[in-house]
Amino acid sequence: MNVTTTAMNHQVRLAARPVGEPKAGDWQSTSEPVPAVPSGGVLVKVLALSLDPAMRGWMNEGKSYIPPVAIGEVMRAGGIGVVTASEHPSFAVGDTVTGTPGVQEWWAVAPEQMKRLGLAKIDLRLGTIGQWMNVLGMPGMTGYFGLMDVGQPKAGETLVVSGAAGAVGQTVGQLGKILGLRVVGIAGGADKCRFVVEELGYDACIDYKGGSVKDGLKQHCPNGVDIYFDNVGGEILDTVLTRINRKARIVICGAISQYNNTTPVQGPKNYLSLLVNRARMEGIVVFDNVDRYPQAIGEMAGYLKAGRMKSKEDVVEGGVAAFPDALPMLFSGRNFGKLVLSLEG
Amino acid sequence: MNVTTTAMNHQVRLAARPVGEPKAGDWQSTSEPVPAVPSGGVLVKVLALSLDPAMRGWMNEGKSYIPPVAIGEVMRAGGIGVVTASEHPSFAVGDTVTGTPGVQEWWAVAPEQMKRLGLAKIDLRLGTIGQWMNVLGMPGMTGYFGLMDVGQPKAGETLVVSGAAGAVGQTVGQLGKILGLRVVGIAGGADKCRFVVEELGYDACIDYKGGSVKDGLKQHCPNGVDIYFDNVGGEILDTVLTRINRKARIVICGAISQYNNTTPVQGPKNYLSLLVNRARMEGIVVFDNVDRYPQAIGEMAGYLKAGRMKSKEDVVEGGVAAFPDALPMLFSGRNFGKLVLSLEG
Repeated sequence: MNVTTTAMNHQVRLAARPVGEPKAGDWQSTSEPVPAVPSGGVLVKVLALSLDPAMRGWMNEGKSYIPPVAIGEVMRAGGIGVVTASEHPSFAVGDTVTGTPGVQEWWAVAPEQMKRLGLAKIDLRLGTIGQWMNVLGMPGMTGYFGLMDVGQPKAGETLVVSGAAGAVGQTVGQLGKILGLRVVGIAGGADKCRFVVEELGYDACIDYKGGSVKDGLKQHCPNGVDIYFDNVGGEILDTVLTRINRKARIVICGAISQYNNTTPVQGPKNYLSLLVNRARMEGIVVFDNVDRYPQAIGEMAGYLKAGRMKSKEDVVEGGVAAFPDALPMLFSGRNFGKLVLSLEG
Repeated sequence: MNVTTTAMNHQVRLAARPVGEPKAGDWQSTSEPVPAVPSGGVLVKVLALSLDPAMRGWMNEGKSYIPPVAIGEVMRAGGIGVVTASEHPSFAVGDTVTGTPGVQEWWAVAPEQMKRLGLAKIDLRLGTIGQWMNVLGMPGMTGYFGLMDVGQPKAGETLVVSGAAGAVGQTVGQLGKILGLRVVGIAGGADKCRFVVEELGYDACIDYKGGSVKDGLKQHCPNGVDIYFDNVGGEILDTVLTRINRKARIVICGAISQYNNTTPVQGPKNYLSLLVNRARMEGIVVFDNVDRYPQAIGEMAGYLKAGRMKSKEDVVEGGVAAFPDALPMLFSGRNFGKLVLSLEG
């Protein structure tokens, strides 16, 4: 009698469209035998997954910048892994790769999927896997292109960043300092604010859980706000709108305060400040800049090596099974730094 | 016994800050002897005043792009008049001039006020007084620079204009047609919509009082909306936000639906469409472009002479006494074209 042990690929699939915050019942755990390497493709063992606020939007029905995750589909997620089998000339066994594996342990990528799912080799000499998930990864690229293209920063200006300790915020604020701006963060809690100022080098940080954002802006932005990089929306966006300067630029990167709403999104009631101040509010989607990632990654890796930039990740252990409990950390702000789910160990 | 008849200057002053729509009690009628010509200045007999939605904002307390009108002050208003006495070398008796006389019959302008109040000669060979109040005046300049600078129009794109029959809207839509865009108006009532299409040459007009704006946009903007020139705010802005294209530009020129609110302004709850579509919303204040008016006026006068552009004014008779009843016409949409208060006759 032969006993064969089949290695399994554990997955998390979307079971239902969440109403409000995603709950355990919105997910389904499945397992399948580890897939074979697709013809002409690669098989990747996933090492770490990126947990991002944008995931909440992908779970909703309706037109957006990317199709929604279908019910029953493996939840979409960015991640990093190692190639364990390859039939593609550009990838060798042992290569570390980034892309969009989804919430599963093994990722079989057919050649025709590679571009759409962003499969690309990464160079661990430029940064650690953690850094590649954060400052050198999608959050970092979002911050880089949002600040540079929409923010149009000029030395001496005042930049305000919400979600300042979060993944995108880290990059934006540190890049702002490197470019010679006055940088003021907004974050939740004294610990995060201390980190933002002491570790990331922001000029100041306003604890929105500990006091008035309006008073904080008055105190820390005596010359008004030239650029506001918004990750949160809601009341904080409205408050910053009252403090912007002429020709200010507001980068609309996200609105995490609104993603779990069961009521309509809270629109910025102070949007006419854009008129009074001849100011601009503009959205950014990072994927538009894929062709420009290499140059931006090179620049950021240089800052990391030179010690001019830091990258803080909050790594959750426990593999894909920990995903349903880990994702909501983002919406309550329980993560401290870029939230990563480790699939190792 | 000598009997002297003193000519009087009738005025309307702001008596109280309105709550909601301006009412009769918010105004005070005064009269003073016609002033003498100021030393080195000019005295102007006012012929016509411009009634504009922006006036409602000037009546509110608080920081804006221009200081509020003080209680007891003659209400601010743009207008056109004729010089009746001059001690200034640039102005001669009989010159037709534009500027900001306020709601009064006579305007004494000291030399140090001339720049701030925008005193300038106008050339009636370029257009009539009505046209100088409209397409060649502040509304026309607002439309011109808002569309050109923020809208960044390209032939073949789709432009949507709210307040399409109004002063600013007339210029925006007609200019859009001249530039080769598909132009769809939004206006209140079948008469205005007919005018917008038949007289101004828009491709289509959606009657927001007669049906669904959303359905109208679906029907008349089959390729989506590239530029939205917003004069109204509120629900219409939110509806257009659901139909914008990638890299769309939204020109925030005004929000007449919100100016008389006694509750907070309705913020655009669909503003995250800016993110999804990498789109931009930007405010415009016409006064920033004063140095560029002459070139724009020349261009518009050319279109008028060539019959490629029309200018429709709605002239209210009755002099300054008619001002309190005329201004609210704007907020209920009872005006049909640029609202002008005549002080002649």
